[in-house]
Amino acid sequence: TINSERLWDSLMEMAKIGPGVAGGNNRQTLTDEDGEGRALFQSWCEAAGCTMGLDQMGNMFARREGSDPDALPVYVGSHLDTQPTGGKYDGVLGVLGGLEILRSLNDMNIKTKHPIVVTNFTNEEGTRYAPAMLSSGVFAGIHTQDWAYDREDAEGKKFGDELSRIGWRGEEEVGARKMHAFFELHIEQGPILEADEKDIGVVTHGQGLSWTQVTVTGKDAHTGSTPMPMRRNAGLAMARMLEAVDEIAWRNAPHAVGAAGHIDVYPNSRNVIPGRVVFTVDFRSPELEVIEDMELNFREQAQDIADAMGVSVEFEKVGGFDPVAFDEGCVTAVRNAADRLGYSHIDLISGAGHDACWINRVAPTAMVMCPCVDGLSHNEAEEISPDWAAAGANVLFHAVVETAEI
Amino acid sequence: TINSERLWDSLMEMAKIGPGVAGGNNRQTLTDEDGEGRALFQSWCEAAGCTMGLDQMGNMFARREGSDPDALPVYVGSHLDTQPTGGKYDGVLGVLGGLEILRSLNDMNIKTKHPIVVTNFTNEEGTRYAPAMLSSGVFAGIHTQDWAYDREDAEGKKFGDELSRIGWRGEEEVGARKMHAFFELHIEQGPILEADEKDIGVVTHGQGLSWTQVTVTGKDAHTGSTPMPMRRNAGLAMARMLEAVDEIAWRNAPHAVGAAGHIDVYPNSRNVIPGRVVFTVDFRSPELEVIEDMELNFREQAQDIADAMGVSVEFEKVGGFDPVAFDEGCVTAVRNAADRLGYSHIDLISGAGHDACWINRVAPTAMVMCPCVDGLSHNEAEEISPDWAAAGANVLFHAVVETAEI
Ligand SMILES: NC(=O)NCCC(=O)O
Ligand SMILES: NC(=O)NCCC(=O)O
Repeated sequence: TINSERLWDSLMEMAKIGPGVAGGNNRQTLTDEDGEGRALFQSWCEAAGCTMGLDQMGNMFARREGSDPDALPVYVGSHLDTQPTGGKYDGVLGVLGGLEILRSLNDMNIKTKHPIVVTNFTNEEGTRYAPAMLSSGVFAGIHTQDWAYDREDAEGKKFGDELSRIGWRGEEEVGARKMHAFFELHIEQGPILEADEKDIGVVTHGQGLSWTQVTVTGKDAHTGSTPMPMRRNAGLAMARMLEAVDEIAWRNAPHAVGAAGHIDVYPNSRNVIPGRVVFTVDFRSPELEVIEDMELNFREQAQDIADAMGVSVEFEKVGGFDPVAFDEGCVTAVRNAADRLGYSHIDLISGAGHDACWINRVAPTAMVMCPCVDGLSHNEAEEISPDWAAAGANVLFHAVVETAEI
Repeated sequence: TINSERLWDSLMEMAKIGPGVAGGNNRQTLTDEDGEGRALFQSWCEAAGCTMGLDQMGNMFARREGSDPDALPVYVGSHLDTQPTGGKYDGVLGVLGGLEILRSLNDMNIKTKHPIVVTNFTNEEGTRYAPAMLSSGVFAGIHTQDWAYDREDAEGKKFGDELSRIGWRGEEEVGARKMHAFFELHIEQGPILEADEKDIGVVTHGQGLSWTQVTVTGKDAHTGSTPMPMRRNAGLAMARMLEAVDEIAWRNAPHAVGAAGHIDVYPNSRNVIPGRVVFTVDFRSPELEVIEDMELNFREQAQDIADAMGVSVEFEKVGGFDPVAFDEGCVTAVRNAADRLGYSHIDLISGAGHDACWINRVAPTAMVMCPCVDGLSHNEAEEISPDWAAAGANVLFHAVVETAEI
């Protein structure tokens, strides 16, 4: 088993970089804090005897050599970036869990046949730059690098420029690496494992997602002197569209969810009827057809709402991935590892998107999940116990080492 | 009559300061652009032979002496600050219309018995600092100066500090001046005059307003992995509350309006269910009882919505004024001036709040209104014709000069 105290210490050390306002983290992608977190991770990897690769998307690859020079590496990792009000474990556990495997192999003086590479993928969260999982997406050939470089944050700063600015734009061609397999450890971010009192989630599938950015255009006007019948209130139209999102998601529950997390109102002045609202709708389901149905249904309802109110509405798809079935061999390796270690486990469908969802397109992939308190994530209060972290990292350790062969 | 070309030229000259993005203005209160606009106004007043007074709220007072050293001045004016996406006339017409009166009196070599003072009141719009009409409110003894100085903008910058920063914090005690009368010329900001093909609105009353800042607190959580029944979505609760605002306003229409122009969602990330939303509800009516009813009704409905959704809600009153009846003598002076000049006119209730509404508490006050295209205001496309501006300024001229006596 891995050294659970060392893993926990590293998690706490990383959490000091980009502290949040309520005990969590704000280490958003391509900020100075992201750069600091990367530097700390690199220093730990080098201390563990690894060489660090860096590709043109800023993806990091810490390599521990294997005994067979011809064997493709086994990859393991996740992401170090966080939400603006994020937790200390979302993503970070997967990266530092991977590092802990290498440290433990060093302690045990074990050489695997296949090299093992620990990765940190850039911009998994998707808050500053939509879509989420941007750089694993470029790695897997889903997006072009030029398109990714052109993504803009809310201030109009481009991804490519910010990556250069923080000094983590590498030379290596993105996606050139071939993987023997990829494993990602992640907190569940949902309530099932805790409710079921299970140590481990064996992730067999991931639900798919559709992000649609909606722009409603009405007419700015005075809130006091504009008679009710003359108003074209984009804010009220947005309110009705949010109600439609909720109704559609409930109609398709429990195998679907929907909400809008991002809403910007213009000009956002107390005495101006909103002339424009931009918001992003997030629909998810493990079934592609359900996602497509919800999306279509929403667009129709939103258009009807807009027409009835004399406002206009435009839709732009700003993110999406299809439901995923992970590799049977890798999933079995995870399940066997949990069994071997005596951890209770169940099969899970991931509710969130993960870098593993894109890497699964180019390499045999699976995920290990551990519980988190109240299923809470994307919240500074996100919490796990050291034992949960250790169980997840131990299962990851065994699955990876079995796949990398001794 | 006044020199309408000179008035129009001055309006266009002022509009060059703090240009908007779509032909209007962004000259919000206590910005550098506000400072520039003030300096231009001061230079024009001094060129017209006036002395400039400046009080501790940054209210400006350009004085043209009268023939009777014991006579109280007649005041005339409005505000030079604008909405973030405001028009070129809202407020500005009232200040530069006042200046045009002084210039015309100079041209005609007329000395009035009472001095005439043209004012620019600080922060009428209320966007950067709630409430609106803040400095005329302090002048009229409605708010204390200390309280006003402590108002914070969205970035936490205090009113008092920003007033000092732009260099327009004067020495004069606020509200120490006694007024013989106050007149304000303003664009209607509503559709009635244009629809009725009237040149002039004789403002007899102003409707009252209530601004309530609503804070809804739910729980930030992942949009993908949080099951629908576990969500405490503050954004969805806000949507339902906006629907209640609209329903309540319609139920009380046509003598009431309601909307929310300001909405901030936290943490405003595409894949985080909103944990907190702050928005401001604006209810208005010419009848105090109706405002109070709407406000109470809204709070009850919002509380019910919150309770049903497992979120909490807090209310804070951030602005308000009671319906106003202007001074009969001053109103008659306006109506007589319109008659004398041969302009078509009707009596109006102002839909918007104005500095005149507060000054009416401490001096006999009335307002003159001119039409604006499509009743549109608080929009960069706000438009009036030079003839409409001239008619309004002529009526103002005659009402003021009659009151100031020759
Ligand atoms: N795991 C995670 O929170 N990923 C962000 C992308 C998503 O919204 O699912
Ligand atoms: N005239 C005007 O737009 N004043 C701002 C205060 C209000 O919202 O009525």
